[in-house]
Amino acid sequence: MPEIRQNIATKQWVIIATERARRPEEFDRPGRTLTGSRPPYVATCPFCKGNEDQTPPEILRVPAEGDWQVRIVPNKFPALTPEGERVRHFDGIHRWMSGVGRHEVIVEGPVHNRCAALQTDAEVARTLAALQLRGREISQDERIEHINYFANHGAGAGTSLEHPHAQLIALPIVPHNIRRRMEEAQRYLDDTGDCVHCKIWCDEVAEQTRIIHQSEHFVSFVPYAAFSPFHTWIIPKKHRSSFLEADQDELADLGGHVRLVLFKLYAGLHDPDYNYVIRSAPPGLSTEYLHWYVTIVPRVSQAAGFELGSGMYINTALPEESARFLRGVPLD
Amino acid sequence: MPEIRQNIATKQWVIIATERARRPEEFDRPGRTLTGSRPPYVATCPFCKGNEDQTPPEILRVPAEGDWQVRIVPNKFPALTPEGERVRHFDGIHRWMSGVGRHEVIVEGPVHNRCAALQTDAEVARTLAALQLRGREISQDERIEHINYFANHGAGAGTSLEHPHAQLIALPIVPHNIRRRMEEAQRYLDDTGDCVHCKIWCDEVAEQTRIIHQSEHFVSFVPYAAFSPFHTWIIPKKHRSSFLEADQDELADLGGHVRLVLFKLYAGLHDPDYNYVIRSAPPGLSTEYLHWYVTIVPRVSQAAGFELGSGMYINTALPEESARFLRGVPLD
Repeated sequence: MPEIRQNIATKQWVIIATERARRPEEFDRPGRTLTGSRPPYVATCPFCKGNEDQTPPEILRVPAEGDWQVRIVPNKFPALTPEGERVRHFDGIHRWMSGVGRHEVIVEGPVHNRCAALQTDAEVARTLAALQLRGREISQDERIEHINYFANHGAGAGTSLEHPHAQLIALPIVPHNIRRRMEEAQRYLDDTGDCVHCKIWCDEVAEQTRIIHQSEHFVSFVPYAAFSPFHTWIIPKKHRSSFLEADQDELADLGGHVRLVLFKLYAGLHDPDYNYVIRSAPPGLSTEYLHWYVTIVPRVSQAAGFELGSGMYINTALPEESARFLRGVPLD
Repeated sequence: MPEIRQNIATKQWVIIATERARRPEEFDRPGRTLTGSRPPYVATCPFCKGNEDQTPPEILRVPAEGDWQVRIVPNKFPALTPEGERVRHFDGIHRWMSGVGRHEVIVEGPVHNRCAALQTDAEVARTLAALQLRGREISQDERIEHINYFANHGAGAGTSLEHPHAQLIALPIVPHNIRRRMEEAQRYLDDTGDCVHCKIWCDEVAEQTRIIHQSEHFVSFVPYAAFSPFHTWIIPKKHRSSFLEADQDELADLGGHVRLVLFKLYAGLHDPDYNYVIRSAPPGLSTEYLHWYVTIVPRVSQAAGFELGSGMYINTALPEESARFLRGVPLD
């Protein structure tokens, strides 16, 4: 019989569809063109070395002098724009705000086909450090209430540009879903005295069946109520609300940890498309109940009418099987 | 400057990305193979006439004797199964329920390439009547707390079977997102004395800019805070909580209305993939604050890391432009 599992952090239910479950190997697509087999330079790619004039003016480059390793540029077609005031409008029954904010792109390196899975630990850490640097800077802007850090890899994950890049979007509001997550986490603290995410990772470590990897500062696992196959969390063992509070040691460790998980997906499932997101408290909020982490969602299944209508997901892979498969992928 | 619009029924914000907005015509994909140009019969299709033995045993056929027009069968790989008890389990920090419920398929007709856009009004109404008939029957099952009615059209909308079909999934819980919507609707009634959806459709009719069509009992429009291009609501003018309360006149009118909107999408955008969902109150609940309706989401854009992380959407089409475009698509 199928199981309906609840994510205790969000209260969302997920159907673990045992009747239609597929083995982890069935999500592999051996015919795919691997990112690593693409050319290292593409003349029309605005992010390749030598094509820097194809992007909007640079916000930052690392290092500042000599050959760059990371470039940060405004998104050419930004969802939000940095100029202007944050104003709430009420017009009859309509409510809208001016679209002020930031939409920036972190180019992860000069080489077109060197996606995160194929980078060194230090290179991945460099991207994370660049996101953190921009996050800290943007947090000073009083119009900004929330920052989303994310990356889209592959056309199936919604990116139109192949060249490895991460992004951030800084918003003049706290999104409704984030507020709801905050409320649930507060309620959990009220009811139990614990941070729900501390509770979850400790439980996963004790149970072991869904663990992928442990490093000095982080633990990765397929969550109990994973909403899709190979859905993975990488969570810091130290309780902190915000990604912006992570120190250099933690970022270095996280770089290696993210790289390891992404490499296992790349090698085990032939470079699936994926999104990753860094979930972090709104700027300036440091609390007992919020705990930052990274979530990785390979795009190996598709949401359809049921998910649209219910907000629930059907996961056709057992989380324990997804984790066992990823643990078994060799690292070289 | 972009606008961030709020859906007053759910409180969710949507970025209307004016800086990256595309004209409605840009979402058209003229190279697509139209469903209508596919063969009318496929030997390996379990839903084609003559292949009835390829499905699990039939639940119902209409008419009961002679050539069938609609068949209802259990999903061959059901997300939930009808046998067993509804039991909540608490196991350490984990919460799960037995996966009892229903997952049924409504085959919309015997012909493989006759998708809803190409059917007659009466044929679409027949599918809706079959969904309602099953919904009423399943509502009697005390283990069922919520029913999702939906259809997936095209591979990009998550269906693996081309043959036109709708589905329902009956759940032993009320999904978290549905509860949240109910709370918001209650709050709106508390604060204003109105059903939020009655308020919304009346406002759209008064404003006209986002209207697609009006029929005797329904009005269709691209909502003010549409989360994607051509996102459409078809809403009954009469306040009722549940789709199961719609009478025969309303179903006949809705069949024509759904067919009209789907035909405009088919003809105007070359048969895009889409999902539709009938949003309806949990079985047995008839209230002042809940109002059923149909939502149609063409899959012409893609959610990515930002949407995953924030629960917000970026709509790259102005709702007013989407509606104007659909109004302009001729009906023959």
